[in-house]
Amino acid sequence: MVVELSFLKRIASVAAEQTLPRFRNISLIDNKFESGFDPVTEADREAEKAIRALINAEHPDHGILGEEYGGENLDRSHIWVIDPIDGTRAFISGIPVWGTLAGLTVDGDAVAGVMAQPFTKELFLCDGEASWYEGPGGTRRLETRKTRDLADATLFTTTPAIFKAEKRIAYDRVEQRVKLARYGTDCYAYAMVAAGFVDLVIETGLHPYDIVALIPIIEKAGGVVTTWDGGPAEKAGSIIAAANAELHAQALDVLNG
Amino acid sequence: MVVELSFLKRIASVAAEQTLPRFRNISLIDNKFESGFDPVTEADREAEKAIRALINAEHPDHGILGEEYGGENLDRSHIWVIDPIDGTRAFISGIPVWGTLAGLTVDGDAVAGVMAQPFTKELFLCDGEASWYEGPGGTRRLETRKTRDLADATLFTTTPAIFKAEKRIAYDRVEQRVKLARYGTDCYAYAMVAAGFVDLVIETGLHPYDIVALIPIIEKAGGVVTTWDGGPAEKAGSIIAAANAELHAQALDVLNG
Repeated sequence: MVVELSFLKRIASVAAEQTLPRFRNISLIDNKFESGFDPVTEADREAEKAIRALINAEHPDHGILGEEYGGENLDRSHIWVIDPIDGTRAFISGIPVWGTLAGLTVDGDAVAGVMAQPFTKELFLCDGEASWYEGPGGTRRLETRKTRDLADATLFTTTPAIFKAEKRIAYDRVEQRVKLARYGTDCYAYAMVAAGFVDLVIETGLHPYDIVALIPIIEKAGGVVTTWDGGPAEKAGSIIAAANAELHAQALDVLNG
Repeated sequence: MVVELSFLKRIASVAAEQTLPRFRNISLIDNKFESGFDPVTEADREAEKAIRALINAEHPDHGILGEEYGGENLDRSHIWVIDPIDGTRAFISGIPVWGTLAGLTVDGDAVAGVMAQPFTKELFLCDGEASWYEGPGGTRRLETRKTRDLADATLFTTTPAIFKAEKRIAYDRVEQRVKLARYGTDCYAYAMVAAGFVDLVIETGLHPYDIVALIPIIEKAGGVVTTWDGGPAEKAGSIIAAANAELHAQALDVLNG
């Protein structure tokens, strides 16, 4: 095991203390213009500060790359890659499909991570060996679905509007082949791939902090996450996550014409 | 008050007993082909049976129109309009934005209703006089947002693909004017209009059971729900829900060119 599950849960917990009180907080939303800060920006920043403080206290030898405050100690072998609120547009719309992401890379490979949704009280965790779900209904190993054929697959993306020119044509080719395409769930869709309820997520324009935490969670549940050219997903950019290697290969073929 | 809040909660409760154990139930999903029934179809049917039994027991003089089992006693003044699982595609994808809808019409007008999301343990209720939220974080009056200008509005729809020909052009006109457009949340988006986090929902092809329960919940929170031509939303079809009358008028103008 690369990292203790309990440490991943502490990351989720210190972040939730900052995000949850600001989620759907009517009085904060009403005061947005007076305060000069909107609740989601505040939640984002305060959660990242809290996660950084925890990592610095417990693993002072680890580096950190965060969405809000950039990099520190990036020359280290172990780097935490953090997005305190992935899905800020869901957050401001009151929809509980945003999440706190923290992933650990070792020499550039994503090996462990957590996706936490504090409103639904759900954790998707990978300690480097296995992936776990904790939430309403208990704790279980995460396992991806066995869907072998695109024609049976459920596909998620934020919105087709993120794909321009050739990328849109490529995405549409896949969408036309799947059983069901759905939009708008940010990191929650990747968590559902790991959990065995969604088969594919295809996106573009991702930053490392959008995807690093999710890579090991999906991989150790049986899935495959790469760039559209089959390269390491840690580079981010255009990403495809699939429930299994067979479906991944099939989708990649269609994606690349 | 037209109906007791406690009765609306009992509707939500008997439905949840049927839907929640089948939501994300891996073993049921795996057995789908052997059993001949998929979990969402079973959940839909069993939840509607349970709701019908409750209404028949407590209000034998009321009629019922349900998605799964059609109409009974439709000559009565009081008719319950039921969708046991609105958002079946979210349900099968593991995303907790589906809901149980039950609305009461009196002489054709939607006057009370409930939208229940049992996984997040949330209730959006209207007893005919006021609209209420019950969920994590407590109970409060539902109140829509004061957004007066399309340029500041958040808009939801299932997917732009539901709009064909002129309807797509009309929808796109509105989408191009708003601050933020998001897809894919079914009845949950309407609930967020009532709760003050979303400003507009625009959809088409709706059945009465998709919208009747939501009309009073939104209206008694300060919002407006009509067809695209400004007619009563109880007719269903092409629907626009707005946070307030001013925004509704503005969106309707743009929608109709």
